[in-house]
Amino acid sequence: MFDEMWGAIEHLGRDGRTGGYLRDAWSPADLELREWFRQEAGRRGLDLEHDRNGNLWAWRGDPSAGDGVVTGSHLDSVRQGGAFDGPLGIVSAFAALDLLDERGAELARPLGIACFTDEEGARFGVPCMGSRLLTGVLDPDRARGLTDDAGDSLAEVLRRAGRDPGALGRDEETLRRVGVFVELHVEQGRGLVHSGDPVGVASAIWPHGRWRFDFRGQANHAGTTRLEDRDDPMLPFARTVLQARALAERAGVVATFGRLHVSPGNANAVPGLVSAWLDARGGDERAVRALVGELTAFSGAEVSTESWTPAVEFGAAMRDRLATVIGAALARRTAPPETGAPDPAAPVPEAAAADPAAPVPVLPTGAGHDAGILAAAGVPSAMVFVRNPTGISHSPEEHAERSDCHLGVAALAAVLEDLCRS
Amino acid sequence: MFDEMWGAIEHLGRDGRTGGYLRDAWSPADLELREWFRQEAGRRGLDLEHDRNGNLWAWRGDPSAGDGVVTGSHLDSVRQGGAFDGPLGIVSAFAALDLLDERGAELARPLGIACFTDEEGARFGVPCMGSRLLTGVLDPDRARGLTDDAGDSLAEVLRRAGRDPGALGRDEETLRRVGVFVELHVEQGRGLVHSGDPVGVASAIWPHGRWRFDFRGQANHAGTTRLEDRDDPMLPFARTVLQARALAERAGVVATFGRLHVSPGNANAVPGLVSAWLDARGGDERAVRALVGELTAFSGAEVSTESWTPAVEFGAAMRDRLATVIGAALARRTAPPETGAPDPAAPVPEAAAADPAAPVPVLPTGAGHDAGILAAAGVPSAMVFVRNPTGISHSPEEHAERSDCHLGVAALAAVLEDLCRS
Repeated sequence: MFDEMWGAIEHLGRDGRTGGYLRDAWSPADLELREWFRQEAGRRGLDLEHDRNGNLWAWRGDPSAGDGVVTGSHLDSVRQGGAFDGPLGIVSAFAALDLLDERGAELARPLGIACFTDEEGARFGVPCMGSRLLTGVLDPDRARGLTDDAGDSLAEVLRRAGRDPGALGRDEETLRRVGVFVELHVEQGRGLVHSGDPVGVASAIWPHGRWRFDFRGQANHAGTTRLEDRDDPMLPFARTVLQARALAERAGVVATFGRLHVSPGNANAVPGLVSAWLDARGGDERAVRALVGELTAFSGAEVSTESWTPAVEFGAAMRDRLATVIGAALARRTAPPETGAPDPAAPVPEAAAADPAAPVPVLPTGAGHDAGILAAAGVPSAMVFVRNPTGISHSPEEHAERSDCHLGVAALAAVLEDLCRS
Repeated sequence: MFDEMWGAIEHLGRDGRTGGYLRDAWSPADLELREWFRQEAGRRGLDLEHDRNGNLWAWRGDPSAGDGVVTGSHLDSVRQGGAFDGPLGIVSAFAALDLLDERGAELARPLGIACFTDEEGARFGVPCMGSRLLTGVLDPDRARGLTDDAGDSLAEVLRRAGRDPGALGRDEETLRRVGVFVELHVEQGRGLVHSGDPVGVASAIWPHGRWRFDFRGQANHAGTTRLEDRDDPMLPFARTVLQARALAERAGVVATFGRLHVSPGNANAVPGLVSAWLDARGGDERAVRALVGELTAFSGAEVSTESWTPAVEFGAAMRDRLATVIGAALARRTAPPETGAPDPAAPVPEAAAADPAAPVPVLPTGAGHDAGILAAAGVPSAMVFVRNPTGISHSPEEHAERSDCHLGVAALAAVLEDLCRS
């Protein structure tokens, strides 16, 4: 089923020229993906629910007692992103449920598949919009007023999509149903390549944030305005880019300017405004905070915080249990088929593990996820990573081998079955 | 008539939020402006012609003998530009013709009003597209292949507008009709503010050009990619911005990065490509060329020339004649109304001129214009400038006082009448 589902969506929002994906939240491509989600839920007899914040939930069983086991991810992408970041978690969720059904697994708890809205924040600037609204860490008034590149507010965009922007905000009823949440995701680094494992488990998410730097000057003619008469905001922006790199190297964190808006943006005009988005993250929250403070002072720009997510440490007991369950499941799965059971004498398919049934690796990540937002809100949460051969993400080159994706599905099925037993 | 015409177009393509204009070539706003031009021509009984390159010509009289006196400018704008750059020349052209008709002036030569296509190059990157194609300095194959931000080629855009892209190229027949060309334009500096004159005449256009710098790196995740693993093109771009300024200061020229495209352009992705457009100009052609060469080597980017226009010196005899004719016309115009003729004893309305009938100032400009392209192609050409109180241009703050605009119309009418006599 994984391959058929993957094939059904891999063309949606794909830029034929670059191979990159353009799946902004609430764009036509996103709406098609949401419709695909609805159909997959219907095909399996799941109950589909839209929550107040635009997230989708497909349930088997009645979650009203608050003991639901939920898995899922998101379907939107960064602009010119890859195929895996987000959709891999959703397609794997449906495929894992199919695997459990094939095996005739009895699920003693309600099982949900979640599709979170606007995880990437490509359109309105705030990542994990759906889970932040759900958990109440994003103010609904602020969210409604966010605008996209066309100047349309989220409120207008929601209204056009037939949603009620007045309903946004912390959603106690939806949240209460989620007893535990597991998100499967393509790894966005090479940790699993180095350890030689197809699948791993997340230990923690680095503290991370996004800040908007507005450098203001005076728009003017590029030919007729003397250098000494210019107030060109491109110059302090350029100095700030180089300073950000120097500060990040010194502090052992990462800092990136990856999005820019230059106004008016004409080759023959000195800009009047350069808006630049800083993304900064690191293992040490104080170091990230200090960098942003120093850079703000250095830049001379007006700086506003678009998002800030403190460090998230996934619960140790749960993550270790996942690592063990997945280790055992994959050992069964990769054992020689003729025996049907692990054969300690057989060659281990992946280089590293001495004991094929040993727990899979537990690794931190610098990427933010809805699972991190839920964990910070007190929902027991965990993440499963699938190996990425190059580590490249947020780019058309993002990749996971199909065989690793299938192992990811097997791992997720084992995790869900285990959680439903507890 | 000037005020009515101005009122009829000043809302077209205006961004209500910024007050800036968005009049890309062949955009809906541009098509409305072209339709307005057609109607103004029709109202005056002028013969409207589309040439092969999308330029519009409104003729009184038969120009086939090659002795046409032509005035005009363009209707497109830079993005978020002002109201005056371009349209002032066209509205003034129609208003000057009206003034000549009111006076019952006999025009012994055919008179044309030209509207050049895509003077700013905001959409396809090449300024003065219409006049460059007309004169053959832009290769039609290159022009057809130019693409806009949406990836549409000029050929497709022309086809959608009902034009034949196959017809592009040097247009001998159209060019032959233009005996002389005068373009009225808002000044894009403060030369006339300093001299205290409402109107002046151009001496020369600086050599100027536009180059595209492509800085290539590797798009990747902004959170999970270590600094040492990055190939972030924003860093060499930032260094190049600062170097351009340093080189320009040293060489006494101007250099600007006012347009940028960052791909993929996500806040949470290291860019894979930064494309930046350099605009460089100056009085000394070799100094401009040297700066571009040094900067290309410094940047490490792939650099391509989008346009290059050598220095244009307008013919001295013609420009001096214009300065004299305008000086005399404005002296008549600003004389006390009760006498109806210049009164040497009356206070001179503008500060500087000791003799109110003295020639108006002759000044150079760093801005490129269609008149410069025609002059370089051997068409006797000249420019009339109208005072700009702040000197700001290519910005919503671009301005000319209405009273100065009216004096500009009087000046242009005097010039056209004079040229038709010669």
